Amino acid sequence: MTESTSRGKFITFEGIDGCGKTTQAEMLLELLEKQELSISFVREPGGDPISESIRKLLLHSEEIMSDRAEALLMIASRAQLTDKVILPHLLNGRWMIADRYADSTLAYQGGGRGLNSTALEEINYFGTYTLKPDLTFFIDISVEEANKRMSVSRDRIEKEGQEFQQRVRDFYTNLHTKEPERVMLINGENSIDAIHNEISSIVSEKLIS
Amino acid sequence: MTESTSRGKFITFEGIDGCGKTTQAEMLLELLEKQELSISFVREPGGDPISESIRKLLLHSEEIMSDRAEALLMIASRAQLTDKVILPHLLNGRWMIADRYADSTLAYQGGGRGLNSTALEEINYFGTYTLKPDLTFFIDISVEEANKRMSVSRDRIEKEGQEFQQRVRDFYTNLHTKEPERVMLINGENSIDAIHNEISSIVSEKLIS
Repeated sequence: MTESTSRGKFITFEGIDGCGKTTQAEMLLELLEKQELSISFVREPGGDPISESIRKLLLHSEEIMSDRAEALLMIASRAQLTDKVILPHLLNGRWMIADRYADSTLAYQGGGRGLNSTALEEINYFGTYTLKPDLTFFIDISVEEANKRMSVSRDRIEKEGQEFQQRVRDFYTNLHTKEPERVMLINGENSIDAIHNEISSIVSEKLIS
Repeated sequence: MTESTSRGKFITFEGIDGCGKTTQAEMLLELLEKQELSISFVREPGGDPISESIRKLLLHSEEIMSDRAEALLMIASRAQLTDKVILPHLLNGRWMIADRYADSTLAYQGGGRGLNSTALEEINYFGTYTLKPDLTFFIDISVEEANKRMSVSRDRIEKEGQEFQQRVRDFYTNLHTKEPERVMLINGENSIDAIHNEISSIVSEKLIS
């Protein structure tokens, strides 16, 4: 089978806000592009015109949003992105890197807000068209470190406070324990280059060799 | 228990577009208001600023929307409306009439588009905060009659065509068979006044006596 007809690999980056996952996702993208891999980057929520409209509603609405509406909007945005962007690319042999994916809903709406995780898993299953990442990097930093790094202007979700962030972090840690083959725990307090080297080694070993 | 502390009743209107349910919902509202019942009307999708934004995205988006994103957006709008408007009113003893509710998702996205009904039921259960209507009027007309009545300017969903509408109608018919105590099948081809009289009799008998 040639590269263009086998399914591309799907890599996601997860972690609390400020952990550095976007930087790492972009560095990995650049590295794999240099290796002449056909690869694209998507951001969650967003990445398609309809998903971007949902993103605006989620992050900048001045109205008080119901916790369940928030979770459903996140997953709606993901369904659109999955159906229109991620799946067509993967099926075409292209690799995809996503800055946040389904695990974020479990961590933020389940772990953070305390919504029923089983229900969220079922809704995610529906909203992702049953797609699962081949590899997920959980970039882990302490809540204190995250807050030091965060800019003064914060969006609605980032304003939730430290206890909320701690619950989100704990959820990701548990996810790594439950799915150690897929979810890699990366110490996000190392230097940017050290983290990048660790991530590239894992990608080479697990997905390229 | 006084009226103000017992939970209000929740009545929904369902049916294919053009069946006359909005007219009937408004007539019932007016009648019950005259009887000095504390009652409000909500429209699905919409009825709250966030829900209205989702409604605009759903009905007027020029992009192609994924079928699952559409279902999730509908239910997100419903979650917001339920949490912020319907439940607080009901718990306060106020009655609520809704022009479409959870059954619409099952009929349109399940029956019409063929999405998995069990998954949709679970997502509805989550998105409605487990609320079920006390009484649902399915105003039934043939697809031919609906098309005669429809205006020339149609929104995105109304453009789906006759086979789609027929599947939606069939879904509602089955729902009436499955839940005959809650879902009343009303012949929508009778005169407006005859339908209104039938609906008011059922409300009196089932919810007021």
